[in-house]
Amino acid sequence: MSYFTRRGFLRLGIVFSAMLSAFRPSSLLAQAQTTIRALGRGVSGYGRRSQFETATRLMRDSRHPEASSSRTPLQNLHGTLTPSALHFERHHAGIPEIAPSTHHLLIHGLVDRPLEYSLADLRRLPAESRTHFLECSGNSGALWREARAATPQSTHGLTSCSEWVGVPLSVLLGEAGVHPTGTWVVAEGADACRLTRSIPLAKALTDTLVAYGQNGEALRPGQGYPLRLFVPGWEGNISVKWLRRIEVVDEPYMTREETSKYTDLLPDGRARRFTFMMEAKSVITHPSGGQRLAGPGYHQINGIAWSGRGRVERVEVSVDGGQSWRNAELQGPVLPLAHTRFRMDWTWDGGEVILQSRCVDNTGYTQPTRDQLIAARGLQSGYHNNAIQSWQVATDGTVENVYV
Amino acid sequence: MSYFTRRGFLRLGIVFSAMLSAFRPSSLLAQAQTTIRALGRGVSGYGRRSQFETATRLMRDSRHPEASSSRTPLQNLHGTLTPSALHFERHHAGIPEIAPSTHHLLIHGLVDRPLEYSLADLRRLPAESRTHFLECSGNSGALWREARAATPQSTHGLTSCSEWVGVPLSVLLGEAGVHPTGTWVVAEGADACRLTRSIPLAKALTDTLVAYGQNGEALRPGQGYPLRLFVPGWEGNISVKWLRRIEVVDEPYMTREETSKYTDLLPDGRARRFTFMMEAKSVITHPSGGQRLAGPGYHQINGIAWSGRGRVERVEVSVDGGQSWRNAELQGPVLPLAHTRFRMDWTWDGGEVILQSRCVDNTGYTQPTRDQLIAARGLQSGYHNNAIQSWQVATDGTVENVYV
Repeated sequence: MSYFTRRGFLRLGIVFSAMLSAFRPSSLLAQAQTTIRALGRGVSGYGRRSQFETATRLMRDSRHPEASSSRTPLQNLHGTLTPSALHFERHHAGIPEIAPSTHHLLIHGLVDRPLEYSLADLRRLPAESRTHFLECSGNSGALWREARAATPQSTHGLTSCSEWVGVPLSVLLGEAGVHPTGTWVVAEGADACRLTRSIPLAKALTDTLVAYGQNGEALRPGQGYPLRLFVPGWEGNISVKWLRRIEVVDEPYMTREETSKYTDLLPDGRARRFTFMMEAKSVITHPSGGQRLAGPGYHQINGIAWSGRGRVERVEVSVDGGQSWRNAELQGPVLPLAHTRFRMDWTWDGGEVILQSRCVDNTGYTQPTRDQLIAARGLQSGYHNNAIQSWQVATDGTVENVYV
Repeated sequence: MSYFTRRGFLRLGIVFSAMLSAFRPSSLLAQAQTTIRALGRGVSGYGRRSQFETATRLMRDSRHPEASSSRTPLQNLHGTLTPSALHFERHHAGIPEIAPSTHHLLIHGLVDRPLEYSLADLRRLPAESRTHFLECSGNSGALWREARAATPQSTHGLTSCSEWVGVPLSVLLGEAGVHPTGTWVVAEGADACRLTRSIPLAKALTDTLVAYGQNGEALRPGQGYPLRLFVPGWEGNISVKWLRRIEVVDEPYMTREETSKYTDLLPDGRARRFTFMMEAKSVITHPSGGQRLAGPGYHQINGIAWSGRGRVERVEVSVDGGQSWRNAELQGPVLPLAHTRFRMDWTWDGGEVILQSRCVDNTGYTQPTRDQLIAARGLQSGYHNNAIQSWQVATDGTVENVYV
C-alpha cells in the first residue's frame, strides 16, 4: 500500500473504505470465477449485442407509430456516444425506404446554376466528421406538466450524440452560386409528409452538414438514410431527414413545423418564433429515477451535459437540493455542441437527499431552475424545457423525480 | 456567385470545374427526385441498418471459426469511429457466453488485500471514457508476403476505433494495495483457452482501463463482454477479453501469447520480445484497392492514421509514388492513441498514379517505407508491419495494391 501512497493515488482510501463492504473475504475469493471449458461462438460478419443486454428505446404509446417518437435509454449508456440503434426517433410520416442509388439532392432557387447530386457525387466531395448532439425541442416536454415516475429516458431521452459525417452545405451552395438576394434556405425531406424547414443562410454556411454517415457507418434509416441535413446545436426537427431538396429563398417560408408546431406560446398569448438553438442543459443519469442504490457508501454521480450555444464550460452538482454546488469533473475532450460526460465522487450517508446538476456553457449561460424557466416562459408551451432536473434519493435507496 | 466570392469560399471553382460533368443539365433537374406517398415504418425499440447497407467483416477462411479473425471494412467507413458490429475480431477459443450477474474480477497476487469485484461493484467506481484504436499485431501481416488483390479491409482491417468506458486499473490496484515487490501484472481471460498476458505495472497504472462500455453501450460479446482489459496503444492481444483475473507478480510470466506468438523473429535468428507498442501507421481508404474511380476530375483522398506512441502529428500524402509529399488535412480533434481521419483535395488527370500516405506522430516517429522496414526487421515475422501502403490507380480508374 505504501507503494501507491508514495505515487500519490488520489482516491485511495476514500473509495476503499466506502466499497469494502461490497467485497468478499479473501477466503471466498475465486470461488465465483467464471470458468468456461468449451469453445465459444466463432467470428461473424456483422456483430450483435449480448443477449443479456436488453435496453431499448422507449416508444410513445401511440396508435400511429409512423408519427411518434422513441427515446434513448440515457441511464443505460456509458461515455458520450449514443449507439445508432438507440438514437432517439421522431418521425412525422414514418421511415421511408430509399434506395441510395436512386436518391438525389437538388440545390435550386436563388442560385446561378441549379445542381443535382447523386450520393456518389456527394462522396467525392470534401467531407467533414464532427461529434454533435441532436435534441428534439419536445425533449423534457412532460416536465412542464410535472410528469411523475420518470427516468432519464422518459424525461431527457429525446437527445442523442453521434459522430456525423458529410459535406458542408456551404460547399454545395458555393457550387450552385447563391444570388445576393438569397437570405434563407428551405430544406425538404422525401418522406410522405415532405417535412420542410426554413434556415437562415448564415447558419447554412457556418456549420451545417449534408450528412451521410453516423458513428462510422451510413446513417441509420430512422436518422434519414441515405441523406439528412444536420444543423448543429439547433432543435432536431430542423435537421431534415431523407433530405431531397434545398431551395435558396429570400425569407422564411413559415411552414407547419415552424408555425403551428415547434413554437412556444408565451404567457401574454404571443408565440416565440424560431427558437432554433437548444440551450444549455444537463441530467444526472446515475443515480436517477427508477434506480435503487445498493446501500450507503461510495457512488460515482455521473450524467451528461450539452449546450446548443457552444461548449460545456462546467457542470455544477448539488447533493442538497440546490443549497450548495460543487464542480463535477468533465470527461475530455469537451467538444462543442456535443454531449459531455460529467462525474463526481459522492459518498451517500443513507439519508434522504435531492441530487441536481446545472450546466454552464462557454457563453456564460447557466441552465435555469424550474421556477426561473416558468417565470420567463409560462406554462403554455410543450417545447424547449431545459430546467434543472431533480432526483430524490429515499432512505431505502430508491430514486425518483421531484419538482423543487 | 459574387456573394460567395466576397465571403472567400476557398474551394469554389476548383470543385465545381472538376465536378460539373457529373451534374444533369438544369432542364432535367428534379425528375429524379425521390417521391414517397405512403407512410413508412414506425419507431422501434432497437434500430438496425438499412437493407441497402451490406458491408461485413471479412472472415479468414478457416475450419476453426473459434480461433480465427474478422476484419473491419475500412473502405466502407466514414469518420473515425468503427461501428461495434464491424469491430475486428481475433479469438483464440471462441466467444464465451457470460452472464454479467455471475461474472467477477479477481485482483490478487502481491497485494495487501485480494479483492473480488462484481460488475455492479465496478459500475459504482470512478469511470473514464476514452476514444482509442485497437490494432492486432498481426494486422498487415500478409503484406510481408506481398499479398495481391488487396483492399484496406484485407491489408489493414485488424484495427478499429471505439469510445471505451471503464474503471482505471490503477483504482483497482490502489484498492488492493500493491506490494513493493510487485512490478508486473498478469491478466487472464475467462475464455476456454484462458488467454493470459503479462503487463508492466507502470503501464497498468498509467492509462490501462478495465472496460465494460464500448461506443455508448456495453461491450459487444466479441470484444470481451462483460469485461475486458484495455491497454491503449499496445498490440491488441494484450487487451485481454472476458477478463476474470489480474494477478500482481514480480516478473513477466512468459505465456504462450508473448513467446511462441506475437514476437518478431529477426534476421539473426533472435526474437524481438515484448513489442508492445503499435507504431505509427496510416492507410488511404479512398481511393483504395478494389475501388474504381468514375473518371478524371476532383476526388477527395481520405484515410485513417494512428500511432500507439501518442498523437498523429501530421499525415503526408504522395500522388507520385513517394517522390513528393503534401500534408493532408487532419480532422479534429486529433485524439491520442485514436484513429485520425485525414483528407486531401486531389484532381485526377486520368494518368496512372501511385498513392501513398505516411504518418508522423508527436514523438517525431515517421512511418517507414517497406524497404526501410525490411532492412530493420527482415522477412521472418508475420507481426508488426507498419510500412507505407501503396495503391496504384490505372488509367481505367481501377485501383490495386502494389509494392514499391
